[in-house]
Amino acid sequence: MLTLHTYFRSSAAFRVRIALNLKGLAWTPQTVWLPDDEHKGGTYRALNPQALVPTLIDGDRHLNQSLAIIEYLDETKPGPKLLPGDPAGRARVRALSQLVACEIHPVNNLRVLKYLKNVLGHDQATIDTWYRHWVAEGFAALERELAGSADTGRHCHGDVPTMADCCLVPQVFNARRFELDLAPYPTLMRVFAENMKLPAFDSAQPSKQPDAARAG
Amino acid sequence: MLTLHTYFRSSAAFRVRIALNLKGLAWTPQTVWLPDDEHKGGTYRALNPQALVPTLIDGDRHLNQSLAIIEYLDETKPGPKLLPGDPAGRARVRALSQLVACEIHPVNNLRVLKYLKNVLGHDQATIDTWYRHWVAEGFAALERELAGSADTGRHCHGDVPTMADCCLVPQVFNARRFELDLAPYPTLMRVFAENMKLPAFDSAQPSKQPDAARAG
Repeated sequence: MLTLHTYFRSSAAFRVRIALNLKGLAWTPQTVWLPDDEHKGGTYRALNPQALVPTLIDGDRHLNQSLAIIEYLDETKPGPKLLPGDPAGRARVRALSQLVACEIHPVNNLRVLKYLKNVLGHDQATIDTWYRHWVAEGFAALERELAGSADTGRHCHGDVPTMADCCLVPQVFNARRFELDLAPYPTLMRVFAENMKLPAFDSAQPSKQPDAARAG
Repeated sequence: MLTLHTYFRSSAAFRVRIALNLKGLAWTPQTVWLPDDEHKGGTYRALNPQALVPTLIDGDRHLNQSLAIIEYLDETKPGPKLLPGDPAGRARVRALSQLVACEIHPVNNLRVLKYLKNVLGHDQATIDTWYRHWVAEGFAALERELAGSADTGRHCHGDVPTMADCCLVPQVFNARRFELDLAPYPTLMRVFAENMKLPAFDSAQPSKQPDAARAG
């Protein structure tokens, strides 16, 4: 039995929810209420020393960091492969995933936005501009990657979803929340639309999680 | 023949330099002069659509994103393995690597520090405080991970260096540049010292790169 410690709006948790669904695995969500800093408490930290969401529990194994979890699932569980079979393909899928997970998302994490507001005293308009700046820069790079490669298919890499699609989709959800103009990224948005046709992506989205109702 | 497009102070390039050395591979450095924004020019972007350092050229393959490059080298080249043989071990090494590469480093990237200075108008003291805040938070998590696990050995995972050590060492170099107090992280610093005894780490450090002289 797999348990995912998740928060509906967490991009990193959203990536893993998609991966679990794509592989057709049964999993139980366990909400970590980030607005109350539940992830910083001792109970959660005992599960995950990094004190970040998500954590996947697989028997007596506690796994953290979304991309590490997705690769672990791909290596140990049945279901469609989320990484290609060849090293060059795997390198491309990992690099696309890391463009989102190492370049775009971290700078716009909730804790960073809170620091800009509470410590540096910036207003919401300045924070929104910051957010859109980094997503726009990262999405421009991602658009160049996707539009410029023959390896891009209906999805980020070929015609089946991979870990890169698990990363792309949550980032587009976030960009929409901050009202970024997405017109400059036609290839990226074509792939996004293709992904969203699949139940594995659709049912993993924030508004369809049980804890979404709690946010009111 | 492997060519690495690198910049001496880039943490991400430093990670890959260590990995190339650990695997005993011959490689040629090609400097990308970040202070002149050379990475943003058309020539470099043709090599790497993400316009980031490093890029590894392996024959007709262009690889980017440091962790993706390290896994590619590990999968395709001879030399000691930089990821463990078991899925749980790989997941741990990836999660430790991603703690540095997705949580600590991106928030303190040169482009982020430039934005704080040039767009938001912060002074150097505020920027230094920002820097130390995120490294301290991340290193506290990394210390908990390393000190709390029986899997930690002389290195981050067992008694041989892995990808996690390739990530830890450059981040400590950066922390020292910003004069972070490292006393609260004894396990992390013990592992750092162990790594620095090895020529693969020592010779990859910024001050020993050919382009370091150019910085004057």
